[in-house]
Amino acid sequence: MDFRKKLLVRPGKKIRLSDFDPDFHGSISSPDEATERLEHYKDKLTSMQRLFYGDRSRALLIVLQGIDGAGKDGTCWHVISAMDPQGVKVQGFKQPTPEEHAHDFLWRVHPHAPAKGEVAVFNRSHYEDVLVERVHKQVPKHVWQARYDFINDWEKLLHEDNNTTVLKFFLYISKNEQLARFKERLDDPQRQWKISNTDYTERNYWDSYIAAFENALSRCSTKYAPWYVIPANHKWFRNLAVSQIIADTMEDMKLKLPKPTVDLAKIRRLYHSASKGKAKKAKKG
Amino acid sequence: MDFRKKLLVRPGKKIRLSDFDPDFHGSISSPDEATERLEHYKDKLTSMQRLFYGDRSRALLIVLQGIDGAGKDGTCWHVISAMDPQGVKVQGFKQPTPEEHAHDFLWRVHPHAPAKGEVAVFNRSHYEDVLVERVHKQVPKHVWQARYDFINDWEKLLHEDNNTTVLKFFLYISKNEQLARFKERLDDPQRQWKISNTDYTERNYWDSYIAAFENALSRCSTKYAPWYVIPANHKWFRNLAVSQIIADTMEDMKLKLPKPTVDLAKIRRLYHSASKGKAKKAKKG
Repeated sequence: MDFRKKLLVRPGKKIRLSDFDPDFHGSISSPDEATERLEHYKDKLTSMQRLFYGDRSRALLIVLQGIDGAGKDGTCWHVISAMDPQGVKVQGFKQPTPEEHAHDFLWRVHPHAPAKGEVAVFNRSHYEDVLVERVHKQVPKHVWQARYDFINDWEKLLHEDNNTTVLKFFLYISKNEQLARFKERLDDPQRQWKISNTDYTERNYWDSYIAAFENALSRCSTKYAPWYVIPANHKWFRNLAVSQIIADTMEDMKLKLPKPTVDLAKIRRLYHSASKGKAKKAKKG
Repeated sequence: MDFRKKLLVRPGKKIRLSDFDPDFHGSISSPDEATERLEHYKDKLTSMQRLFYGDRSRALLIVLQGIDGAGKDGTCWHVISAMDPQGVKVQGFKQPTPEEHAHDFLWRVHPHAPAKGEVAVFNRSHYEDVLVERVHKQVPKHVWQARYDFINDWEKLLHEDNNTTVLKFFLYISKNEQLARFKERLDDPQRQWKISNTDYTERNYWDSYIAAFENALSRCSTKYAPWYVIPANHKWFRNLAVSQIIADTMEDMKLKLPKPTVDLAKIRRLYHSASKGKAKKAKKG
């Protein structure tokens, strides 16, 4: 199945998340099958990223969004780690500092936009400013309303002025699945420190978050920076879908390694005569 | 074998690289044996980094240096990739830009020093300024001479003021091994673009580089920021030694996960009564 077609938010289309099933897993019937296919796409990501790094004509920005517990961190570990850490930068965005707050909302993300040859991953992103800030009424309506256009303009800038592809993933889990995941964390001594009271109180805003996500997805999915809705109740499906969409997108870029800057034939001749010289010496000695 | 003892440049000791054997591989007799042990240490790195990220009381800076072809990139891919890309940042330092050049030599590296909970990897580093700049006489002698103390002071600052451990690896290959590796690249269509004429002309400065490395290693190995000389003619030994030194160092940090901020018992009771409520409803229905 081509997840890029199936899971794409078509530009200009107003979507409702109730039309999506967070349990969806396509024709993949078991975690084992998904894992096998994931390994294939991780290998592809490894080689594609190497090519991408050499090609240096394009940049790639991957945006991960989703409600708490949706698996943003897990996607970094299970998918992004397939790429050479030298060519990939993961940037998390937490609550803005006072200095960040004293600037426009794109000020803190812009410095982390990827250079040509580089992959940047945003774990949370500039979309927080039309999500949490909207839900909690931290800015007046006319301020967050204006931001959708600013986001589109900015992503267009990255695309047109620096040949950046922007891939945005909304990891979609159900409200019950979130509760189950919080419970898992509570019961795991390695992870219980990650649970806070806020995680639970934020659940009271579930519907507002869904509405805010619907708006962001509908208004900011563009040809140059598409949104994908990733059904994420099954972690194995989430990892597979994200890895496949990234790998297929990179494959379509027709990446090319640069031509060697040295005269290959000439240098090979030098090696050849050097080894002949050595052989002569060895005979003499 | 404890590579931390064996390969350490003892603080205050003046070393000569001719006393080290780049072919050294300890008691490890085969690449297979090394790979098996490497997997063990990579697993350890994965779990240690997770703990380190949660602990958030310490920072870790890993510096990779070595002559061209010594395997700085390979170490990133084979060792560093064992850690979650979310908690690790690899920063490469190339020839300084005019803006960087117009500042003191630590100006461009300082912003990349790791935060607590973070691992930063420098692929080349502030040591370039006592290596290439010295070898090519890009600054007067009194300028690079003064830099060893500045480096020690700066690394001490990271250590004392931000609880940063600095681990520095000099990947040591022989002059012949370098030539063989350049040849490998020439013959590999995926990598021949990485070879430039400079790689060959820089070989004329081999002895000056060795002298500069000896000086940097001797003057800047400290208790808080030790240098290790990694015999690197065998890539499998290099990867094993680096992974083991990092993993063992992290293990000694006695890292601890933070205490949960929520009342675990209380939240578990809530889950319990919720599932009892559900069961009641199901019975009624």
